[in-house]
Amino acid sequence: MKPNFSLRLRVFNLNCWGIPYLSKRRGDRMKRLGDFLNMESFDLALLQEVWSEQDFQYLRQKLLPTYPSAHYFRSGIIGSGLCVFSKHPIQEFTQHVYTLNGYPYMIHHGDWFCGKAVGLLVLHLGGLVLNAYVTHLHAEYNRQKDIYLAHRVVQAWELAHFIHHTSKKADVVLLCGDLNLHPKDLGCRLLKEWTGLQDAYLETRDFKGSEEGCTMVPENCYVNRKELHPFSCGIRIDYVLYKAVSGFCISCKTLKTTTGLDPHSGSPLSDHEALMATLCVRHSPPQHNPSSTHGPAENSPLVVVLREALTELDQAVAQAHWWATFAGYTIGLGLLLLAVLCTLAAGGGVREVAILLWTPSVGLLLGAGAVYTFHMQEAKGLCKARAELQHVLGRAREAQDLGPESQPALILGHQEGSRAEDE
Amino acid sequence: MKPNFSLRLRVFNLNCWGIPYLSKRRGDRMKRLGDFLNMESFDLALLQEVWSEQDFQYLRQKLLPTYPSAHYFRSGIIGSGLCVFSKHPIQEFTQHVYTLNGYPYMIHHGDWFCGKAVGLLVLHLGGLVLNAYVTHLHAEYNRQKDIYLAHRVVQAWELAHFIHHTSKKADVVLLCGDLNLHPKDLGCRLLKEWTGLQDAYLETRDFKGSEEGCTMVPENCYVNRKELHPFSCGIRIDYVLYKAVSGFCISCKTLKTTTGLDPHSGSPLSDHEALMATLCVRHSPPQHNPSSTHGPAENSPLVVVLREALTELDQAVAQAHWWATFAGYTIGLGLLLLAVLCTLAAGGGVREVAILLWTPSVGLLLGAGAVYTFHMQEAKGLCKARAELQHVLGRAREAQDLGPESQPALILGHQEGSRAEDE
Repeated sequence: MKPNFSLRLRVFNLNCWGIPYLSKRRGDRMKRLGDFLNMESFDLALLQEVWSEQDFQYLRQKLLPTYPSAHYFRSGIIGSGLCVFSKHPIQEFTQHVYTLNGYPYMIHHGDWFCGKAVGLLVLHLGGLVLNAYVTHLHAEYNRQKDIYLAHRVVQAWELAHFIHHTSKKADVVLLCGDLNLHPKDLGCRLLKEWTGLQDAYLETRDFKGSEEGCTMVPENCYVNRKELHPFSCGIRIDYVLYKAVSGFCISCKTLKTTTGLDPHSGSPLSDHEALMATLCVRHSPPQHNPSSTHGPAENSPLVVVLREALTELDQAVAQAHWWATFAGYTIGLGLLLLAVLCTLAAGGGVREVAILLWTPSVGLLLGAGAVYTFHMQEAKGLCKARAELQHVLGRAREAQDLGPESQPALILGHQEGSRAEDE
Repeated sequence: MKPNFSLRLRVFNLNCWGIPYLSKRRGDRMKRLGDFLNMESFDLALLQEVWSEQDFQYLRQKLLPTYPSAHYFRSGIIGSGLCVFSKHPIQEFTQHVYTLNGYPYMIHHGDWFCGKAVGLLVLHLGGLVLNAYVTHLHAEYNRQKDIYLAHRVVQAWELAHFIHHTSKKADVVLLCGDLNLHPKDLGCRLLKEWTGLQDAYLETRDFKGSEEGCTMVPENCYVNRKELHPFSCGIRIDYVLYKAVSGFCISCKTLKTTTGLDPHSGSPLSDHEALMATLCVRHSPPQHNPSSTHGPAENSPLVVVLREALTELDQAVAQAHWWATFAGYTIGLGLLLLAVLCTLAAGGGVREVAILLWTPSVGLLLGAGAVYTFHMQEAKGLCKARAELQHVLGRAREAQDLGPESQPALILGHQEGSRAEDE
């Protein structure tokens, strides 16, 4: 690689709102999206909510000349909705499906059936290894009383953890997607603090698009304005995040968003706004991790956000155990009721009543069994994330106490051990 | 690190058979296992089937002075059963839960409820980064008619893929566990070919233990001899596998197994035999990947095993779709039946019969719905693995056609791209 190496990367991100039968003008929007991507010829187009594999196949055919490589990430029952189109060959891909993703009995929200995930693509561009991640986290249906908060925090944590463990040999890391997190939300801070990823909107000097970089705006005719309340100019929940490892530097030259309208015809491509970033990667002398801060361990941004996440998870674990216990008692009650009904049915007299009550009793028993099983699994997932957070918190405190020099290496796991095990 | 660097690593692996209420003499065996591990003072002890977290906590307390670091991998409803005790500090850990793991309606087999997984530990030993993996794949209940074959192949593939993506910066990779695969089974070959891991039993010159390295032997009083038929001397399904990256070499100095008896008291520690390996890691000049072979692409071991796995998955995908379709028709039938029953109940006459049939109809509908949902998810998981295998197969053929020099880099994804994207 030449010492004056420099790479320009044009990236497109969009939550496509592609729910079969439910999303308005889906076919027309997919067609216009394909035309737009072909015309703009990005290096990478990362899409979310392409729930129908037929839509992916349609786009794949349409985009083949401009984007010869593509991948659709399959997971869950419906799918992850994630796919990617690349101008450059995809060397490798893999995915991680989030452990927690809502509740199966919240059928009207549907997230549980989707198998929300993070997809990884490895690309080799001019001798540089690029790890590109695309993801979509659990939706937020009620910001005031968000029953999915802990699940989204765990998803953000797993996303950060997955990036951390799979990008150790990457030169550049790129993460695009719909995080369903506002910039200052716990999950977003956790992700940024633990991975060191930088936010294109905050970093670029050349931004054009919607006010405050919002990606769901009231001007978009597919957006329900009531749902945006109290955020009058919209919300920013879709992101382009990036970082380069030592030896490279990356910057966002330009960032654009659509503004509730199609760039050409006037009708929007989705209920979300698209993000279009031009990133520039260059060689640079090795430097300190900018996220390292001086001062006492307890005040470092990473430690603060880890403690906040742990508090959230503690509450969620208690709640999951409460539900499992409640379901356990209900199972006991259901069994008792069934036994009584059997006795009544055998003894005659109120036979018809006993038979009539048989169905709801069995239903109660099966329902309670499912709730018990689900919340036991939820508690396991929460405890797993909690153990990981506690371990990282311990190491972050340790690193902070050792002084700023050893922080990036120790926290990010690149430390070369000092104990000699020589024979 | 000194140029004459050398590291000796003593590793212990055991499937502990720790099923609460079902496994015989569990408490006594856990106690003796703890005593044995304390006495032997291995560097790492990797355990499977520690299903009860209380057992883990008991061992943790008992082993604390000798193994100050420990981790229990939580997943699924019951748990993964995986845990690890380490003499050295655990720097990082993470896990991957397998997408496919049997069928929920096979309650008597129970695997589905366990959340079988692979756990990863990162250790720093004398400046060397060791990635240690511990896993347990789906059990094999009937070798002649193995309904879980495709699931186990997908698990082996995901295991290999997880190792591949998370070990890129590791100097040494170690994998221990109960694979529930015989050495020549498809899953085992796929794992070894794709990761380049070497089998301690096949590599060591100093082996002591059961005949042919078997880890389930008829001499063990907890083993049902009928289940071992037709393998008279037992089966080898537990492994210690390893590899070192360029710049290091690793060898297995000694490998021991127990032989159906406790090393001291005479009664076995589990129904499986323990593996005890002494590994030696040294500096070595960079060398070619030994798994690369010359000759036409179609005959290379990797391509052969990938094609075999794809054939297996094609069949499994067809079967999963068949079940989903069958369940779909049953749902239609159930809905029709319910409509008829409602009409009959409303019309009087055979009212009692209609009420009696109501329960089984609703049951049929719910059951069919669950089967449909499950097999749709199974098909998604199988298709995901198939897409990954197809991609790797394509790249393996490409690499083979380019000649042996470019194989390891191209296939294992360490290739430095040649296209310049300079501005």
